[in-house]
Amino acid sequence: MKIGVFDSGVGGLTVLRALLRRVPADYIYLGDTARLPYGAKSRETVGRYAVSSAKFLVEEQGAEFLVIACNTASALALDAIRDAVTVPVVGVVETGANAADASSRTRDVLVIATAATVASHAYAAACGERQLRAIEKACPLLVPLVEEGWIEHAVTAEVLRIYMAELMEQARAAGLDADTLVLGCTHYPLLRAQIEKAVPEKLRVIDSAEVTADQVAARLGMGGDGIEASAKFFATDSVAKFRALGSRFLGREIDGVELVELGG
Amino acid sequence: MKIGVFDSGVGGLTVLRALLRRVPADYIYLGDTARLPYGAKSRETVGRYAVSSAKFLVEEQGAEFLVIACNTASALALDAIRDAVTVPVVGVVETGANAADASSRTRDVLVIATAATVASHAYAAACGERQLRAIEKACPLLVPLVEEGWIEHAVTAEVLRIYMAELMEQARAAGLDADTLVLGCTHYPLLRAQIEKAVPEKLRVIDSAEVTADQVAARLGMGGDGIEASAKFFATDSVAKFRALGSRFLGREIDGVELVELGG
Repeated sequence: MKIGVFDSGVGGLTVLRALLRRVPADYIYLGDTARLPYGAKSRETVGRYAVSSAKFLVEEQGAEFLVIACNTASALALDAIRDAVTVPVVGVVETGANAADASSRTRDVLVIATAATVASHAYAAACGERQLRAIEKACPLLVPLVEEGWIEHAVTAEVLRIYMAELMEQARAAGLDADTLVLGCTHYPLLRAQIEKAVPEKLRVIDSAEVTADQVAARLGMGGDGIEASAKFFATDSVAKFRALGSRFLGREIDGVELVELGG
Repeated sequence: MKIGVFDSGVGGLTVLRALLRRVPADYIYLGDTARLPYGAKSRETVGRYAVSSAKFLVEEQGAEFLVIACNTASALALDAIRDAVTVPVVGVVETGANAADASSRTRDVLVIATAATVASHAYAAACGERQLRAIEKACPLLVPLVEEGWIEHAVTAEVLRIYMAELMEQARAAGLDADTLVLGCTHYPLLRAQIEKAVPEKLRVIDSAEVTADQVAARLGMGGDGIEASAKFFATDSVAKFRALGSRFLGREIDGVELVELGG
């Protein structure tokens, strides 16, 4: 079984990391680093980039199953990807909403994500389909803080305190009694411990990487634990940067990244 | 006189803003927003993007003079742009280094910029050509803080305090007696007051937008003050986002942004 995992950059490696331990398969990871970040781009541009990336994984690399480990692409381009390839496609917005659905008793959930993911209201829509009310909040500083490596840092704690206070106030104003917080960006699992400290205890934090791996395992009927699957890595820009930054997300050294040219 | 001003996004509008007041001309501004940020990309990718953008301004829009208001493109692609077009080309790295040369008595200068600009060591090279010693420091959180609108914010003050303390320590360790600090990113002029508070008083802060406008005026022999020149705006991604975010950088409302497709 060949599983393609796609993200605009290295963030999706948190999803791959969870998959490698849970689902035995040959993985092909593509980071479209030449065109990142998708988060600030329009639906049309993200669609074009995501479709060419998905086609590379399926048509050139033989992926039989696709995991869209990029919230922006899942939010803006999942239908376009499904139209463009013939293999099953799972996106992290759906898996996050599924997990929120399973977790929430009050049926009120909170979502934090990048500006583009929030602007798309993809989480609110996916939650709505599952009879959940959702409040979404953009947290644009969290990705650069993670990429700066300021994980356990006072500045990050203060930024999280501000963002989370604003989110709680939004929820209060809207009359929500939320019991679940979805991390709607693949960078955020690295901040999970800090986020849990910054929110009320009653909020269960949904880590998109973990829940995506669980759901892929369930869907393929072949999950396990402590598996050590293997992966090949492709990037559309500097392989050295991909390796250097990516190791933090994958939790181990990355070797053998191959450069690929996908055009405009 | 038609002057083309190019940046990967809206940051270069700080340069356009200074030009509009100093140099009477018809301006054409291009923000290559579909492919931003250049800051995290390789020399080859930045070169390809910058050349296609420069050709659009000269060949399709009739620019007779080009200002590369993007530090990353000036650092990584100035020669490629000069090879690709027949009009004079001025880049913000050169203008910043010229201003540092004019300002510094100790001949030791400090530069803050994005990670890619620093990795290119373009400022150190340009300063070296002018018999200046330079220490460069990457400050990757400043652009997202500006774009979040956290200009006069305690978190930004704390991030600046940390970055500037690290920079002063680097300078001390290298034995530099710096008297000049170059803002090597077009977003940084918006933080100029906060940066001046975070550094020793003896450091003169060089604002790349202001000094670029001064040098273009001198080169064309047609500078003034209190001029109100006009500009046309082009972006390669969402014109709505360009308008919304850009107004902060230009210091006034932007209307009539045109979408342009430059390919990959």
